[in-house]
Formats: sequence, C-alpha cells, structure tokens
Amino acid sequence: MAVGPSDLPELLPIAGIRIAVGSAGIKRPGRKDIVLFELAEGASVAAVFTLNRFCAAPVHVAREHMGKSVPRYLLVNTGNANAGTGHQGMQAARQSCAAVAALMGCAPEQVLPFSTGVIGERLPLEKIEKALPSLPDMLDDSGWLAAAHGIMTTDTRPKATSKTVVSGERSFTVTGISKGAGMIKPNMATMLAYVATDAPVENAVLQTLVEDVVNRSFNRITIDGDTSTNDACVLVATGAAGGKPITAVDSDDYRSLRQAVEQVFIELAQGIVRDGEGATKFVTVEVTQGLTEKECLQAAFTIAESPLVKTALFASDPNWGRILAALGRAGIDDLDVEKVGVEINGVVVAENGGLAESYTEARGKAAMAKENILIRVCLARGAAMETVWTTDLSHDYVTINAEYRT
Amino acid sequence: MAVGPSDLPELLPIAGIRIAVGSAGIKRPGRKDIVLFELAEGASVAAVFTLNRFCAAPVHVAREHMGKSVPRYLLVNTGNANAGTGHQGMQAARQSCAAVAALMGCAPEQVLPFSTGVIGERLPLEKIEKALPSLPDMLDDSGWLAAAHGIMTTDTRPKATSKTVVSGERSFTVTGISKGAGMIKPNMATMLAYVATDAPVENAVLQTLVEDVVNRSFNRITIDGDTSTNDACVLVATGAAGGKPITAVDSDDYRSLRQAVEQVFIELAQGIVRDGEGATKFVTVEVTQGLTEKECLQAAFTIAESPLVKTALFASDPNWGRILAALGRAGIDDLDVEKVGVEINGVVVAENGGLAESYTEARGKAAMAKENILIRVCLARGAAMETVWTTDLSHDYVTINAEYRT
Repeated sequence: MAVGPSDLPELLPIAGIRIAVGSAGIKRPGRKDIVLFELAEGASVAAVFTLNRFCAAPVHVAREHMGKSVPRYLLVNTGNANAGTGHQGMQAARQSCAAVAALMGCAPEQVLPFSTGVIGERLPLEKIEKALPSLPDMLDDSGWLAAAHGIMTTDTRPKATSKTVVSGERSFTVTGISKGAGMIKPNMATMLAYVATDAPVENAVLQTLVEDVVNRSFNRITIDGDTSTNDACVLVATGAAGGKPITAVDSDDYRSLRQAVEQVFIELAQGIVRDGEGATKFVTVEVTQGLTEKECLQAAFTIAESPLVKTALFASDPNWGRILAALGRAGIDDLDVEKVGVEINGVVVAENGGLAESYTEARGKAAMAKENILIRVCLARGAAMETVWTTDLSHDYVTINAEYRT
Repeated sequence: MAVGPSDLPELLPIAGIRIAVGSAGIKRPGRKDIVLFELAEGASVAAVFTLNRFCAAPVHVAREHMGKSVPRYLLVNTGNANAGTGHQGMQAARQSCAAVAALMGCAPEQVLPFSTGVIGERLPLEKIEKALPSLPDMLDDSGWLAAAHGIMTTDTRPKATSKTVVSGERSFTVTGISKGAGMIKPNMATMLAYVATDAPVENAVLQTLVEDVVNRSFNRITIDGDTSTNDACVLVATGAAGGKPITAVDSDDYRSLRQAVEQVFIELAQGIVRDGEGATKFVTVEVTQGLTEKECLQAAFTIAESPLVKTALFASDPNWGRILAALGRAGIDDLDVEKVGVEINGVVVAENGGLAESYTEARGKAAMAKENILIRVCLARGAAMETVWTTDLSHDYVTINAEYRT
C-alpha cells in the first residue's frame, strides 16, 4: 500500500557518479541488495547521520572515514542493519570497506559503508565479499533507478527524483534517491538518501547545504516516531558542470542550487511518507501562529504521532477531539486553549478551543475522506509556523511490523 | 480482549459511601451510563486531574468546586467526554451539578461532575436530567461492582479491588474502581478512578497521599501515549472507622493506610493496562542503574510507547534491536551504549550494547511467547530505577480506534 501516484520522473545522470547494483543474497537469494556508488576524484561530499545513541557500526565507520579522507565509494547493503552488533559489527563494516578498496584501488578510508535491515543480527560479510567482484564492470552513470530499487527494504516502491536549475550561464542537475517506510522519525538525517549534483561546491558549503535542507525535509517527517539506528543522508557535488566553485552561501549560485536541492530533498522525504508502512493517507500537519518554531514542531509531531489521531485518519473519521487532546499534551504549558483553531482540508472544525459554529459532521466526513489530508492548527499566540508530514496507522502497519522478521 | 484472569476480589463496602447506577441513554439506550456517589458529611476528599491543556469542562468545574466546598456527591457519565465543547460544555457541566444539588438538597458546589467518552460532541444534558430522579432511591453501600461496570467505555471488563489493613487497634478498609482502556498515558491522574477508605484522614494529608500513590501507579502506565482530556482520580476518606484522624505523614497510621491505598491504586492501574485496547500482553518495562529517576522514566516510556517495540511484542518476536533503537532515541545524550544490557523475562539478550554471547533465538522466542513480559534494561551508570506498565499494539487496537465513533 502507498499513497499517491507511483510514477517517477526521468532520472538524469550526474556526470562524475557511476552506480552498480548486485545481489549478495543477504536476506533472500536473488534479491538486489547491494549498491556501489563511485564518486569522481575531486567531488565534494557532505553527509548527516542519525542521532540515535545506538547508531549502527557502519554509521560509526562512515563518520570516521569522512573525517580522514574524501570518499570515492559508497557501499550500501539491505537486509541487515549491522546495528547492535558490538565489536564484531565494527570489524565487519571496516572489512567491507577494505574489500571495496582492494577491488577499486583506493584507501579503505575512501569507502563509506551503509547498512539497512534487521537490527541485532550479524552482518554476513562473506556474502558481501563474494558479490563485490561482479560490481566494477557494471558501474554506469544511468544506474540511479536500479539503485533506488536496490536500497529498498519494506518499501513498496522506489523514491527518486531529478531537478535542473539554471544559474547565470550554467545549469546544474540534481538527482537523488531515498528509502524508508518504517522506523521513520529522522533526527538530523533520514533512513538512507543519496543525492548528487554536478555543481562545483566547496566542502564546507556543501555541508551547510545538506544540514539546511535536511532540516526542511527529512527532519520534518515521521511515520511511527521511531528514529532509526542507521539513518544517513549523503550529498555529493561532482563539479562536472564546470566553472567557478560555489564557496559562499550568500551567492546567487548557492541560492539557485539550494532551491533545486531542497525540492529534491522534500520530494524524497515525502516519497518516504507516501510509502509509509501501511499508509493509506498522506497527511500534512501545519501548526501556525506559534510563539516559537520549536513549539510549533512539538505540537505538529505530537499530533502526527498520536496513535489515536492516526487511527482516526485511517478510518476517515473527523474525530477532531483527538487532535485537540494531542495538542493539549504537547508540552506547551501556557497555551491558551480558548484561542486555538483547527481546520481539516479547509473545513473549520474547531475555533476558540471548541466546536466551530459552522461545522457539520457531513462536512468533516467529506474532508477526511480524501487521500491527502491537511490538518492546520492555529495557536494564535505568535508568528512562527512549522509543517510536518506523516501517515495514518492502519492494520497493515501492524501486520508489516509483526511479521517483519518472519 | 484482555490479559490475565478477569475475576475480581470481594468488594468491601466503605461506611459513609453510597452508590447508585442508572441509564440515561447517552450513547446507546439501556446502557448503564450514569453513576452517582454519595459521600457522608464530614468525609475528606482529595483529587488529581489531567494535565492535558485541553481538559474537559467537567474537569474545570470539578476543580473549581473542590476549591469552594467539600464535595458530597460525585456524578459520572460515560458516552460523552464533554471536552472541546467550549462555553456550552461548561454550562452543561454546571447544570448537571445544579440538578443533583436540587435533587439531594445540597449546594451545587458540593457536586463534582465527571464525563468520559467521545471528545467534541455536546453533552446531552436533558437525558442526564431525565435519568437523575431515579437514582436517590437506589443509593446503596454495596454498589461498587455496579459502579465499576457503570463507568466503562471501551473497557471489556470492570476494574475494582478492596484491601483491609490493621493499624494499631483499628482496621481500615480501602475499596476502589477505575476505568480506561485507550487514550491512556495519565499525567498526574488517570482516566477515572474512585477510591474510598473508612479511615479518618485530614484533607491536606489525604491530598498528599493521593498524589504520592498516583505517582507510583496511574502515572506509571501507558497504553498509547495519549494523555486524556478527562483524567480524574478521587480518594475519599469517610472517617467511619472512627478514632483519632490521621494528621501527619510520618505516623504509623499513615504508613499502614498508605500501603493499602497504594496496593489498591497499583491494582487498578494495572487493571487498566491488562484491559488496554487490543491488549494481548501485559508488559513491565523496568529501567535500572540510571543516573536519575527522570532518565529511567524517559527510557521506560520511550520503549513502552515505541510502535515497533509494541508490534514485536504482539508478534511474540524477540526483536530486541527495536528496544535498543528506542532507548537510543530516549534523549539520554551521554548514554554509554557499550555498557547497556537488556533482559526479556530473565533471558539476557544484549550485554555491553550488543548481542549477548549466551543468547539464542530459541531462548528469546520462548521468553517472548509468554503473556506477561518483563523487559529489564540496565543503563549501568547510576543507582536510580523506574518501572512502567504497558501493552502490545495489535490489530484490535487499530480496529477499536478506527471504529470508535461508529
């Protein structure tokens, strides 16, 4: 199940990025479960990783390698998260980088490892090592769609998009893929996302860019409130578009590029929500007129993660009392509830903290019957606003997560 | 569905408390949906209410009346929460107190109103006013079990218990009932609980007692993390046992009474969890060796409320990685994950932050197959500990909450 159309736009190659996808049989034989990205020499690379304290071994190793060298290869496996695997897991992550390095002729520190799948089972390193030699010959700049498929786990469809933006006399292309459907409440990063551009961008500027746009995209989605141990998001700038590198955030080039990158990130983040485990609705929670962005976010996430709001969404039931109840426990201690208003898809359901005069159950039901739901909550106490995207909570969410390991 | 045996102990009458149960037809005709408690003149009354900012009209009115007078009557209705109902809801709550006062010959401020049910629909006051005159003749001190039934909503069975404790030459009896199965994460109070004792207790001491034991019982349970708008818990001391009143918390009488009251509160709180919406497991999450009780609670609630942990519990799947992942996002920033240990029903699954050497999937599966699950997490950084009780997340939870208003 997933919400909205599943067709993808044409994925434009990024000069300087080649991709190969293979089968290591990690969880099931024959499944595409291993992806290798090759980044051209001289590419800038920026990344953000999960803030979960139990971050996986590959996250530790990737962070360490980023500090030592500029990456040339990204190795991704699905079917096993290599998280909660202790010392042995760290060794396996390092060993997988060494295997790629030996094959491609680079230093192990120039390889970043990424894993996604079951937590707490040992990474079958030998299967990965056996599959790796088939990859170099397959490296190709048209591999984005295959890679989007190759990083899927409980995803029902690939998430990928491309944008082109003109900046002065140059044109930049941005292409990206992501995966994720459950254990989704990214904190500083998302499950897995790989985005590349041919724009030339200095490393520090690229890091600013990725943190900035992640905060407006992946850090604004939640499916079940569970932050993953393996979240990682990588942004690569190959520079193949040529010309002067972007070295400052207050330049026109930066602003043009930022716009395209942000669009790609938001599409990829929303793609994860649309494919959320068991999702039947795509829900936007917008909290307006807050005192601070922080309290708007708190309110939006509390509503978006309330199991009662989510089951009402699944039932298309305009049970707006649950929205107020969630807002009431969101930790905004001095909230004046008598000023609060709630709209669902433009239908005013609550005003001044109670049932709106104009509200009828028929209008509420019609609004909730839609596949795309906009819940707008007005706190009436300031000028801040925030938006969060989420899904409903359906029987299929329970089925998928009760049967995940079987 | 509910977890564990459903038989109740004998419910001992409390001298000074009479109860009547009637049918107002608020949601469905013929259903017992209205309960009236009469408290003897001179009884002490203490209460705690929800901290949800959107607290219901009856909570506002009950708080106000508690401040003005000593209550003589408690009026409870199910089928409608009278929450999110604005000015009209406040009037309806006041009017229901005035109706009881007129009938029983007391001041309206001596009546406390309580409502539970759907949020955001207007209270059908006329139905309640019509049903009230049948109640006075039914007032009886043996009405506890009928009242436990009369306050149920999505509950599948009543929660009630009695304890007797000997203190010096006196003996005190404590009897209580509670309700609740969903929208359960009490914050300073619970859905609805009424407990009475015949001990003579000064008002201020009784308030200390109720806050103390609520913190060890109702404030330690969560079903779905959703704090209700209508939580209320009332403790009445009629003094009918006679003798010198309890005026200090450092007395033997207080300690004896406290023990019995705490047992009653914990049984009633656990009863709510055992009857949690769709519950198939009764789960105890114990976090030990924390630096502070606050961080132990944070960790315990994060694990207890994780949809991924809850669906694994439903599936009897020892997917302990989800416990670590939840712990990792619980906000304990300087947690040394390499020291953390996890046990499930005595089986060591993780030690030093990774898979335990002695762990086998067969042992994990056997532990998780039980109906009562104890998850013990050791943070290995201090001497604090906390315990929280919760349930799993099943298909029935989704069904119940998707169909609640139909």
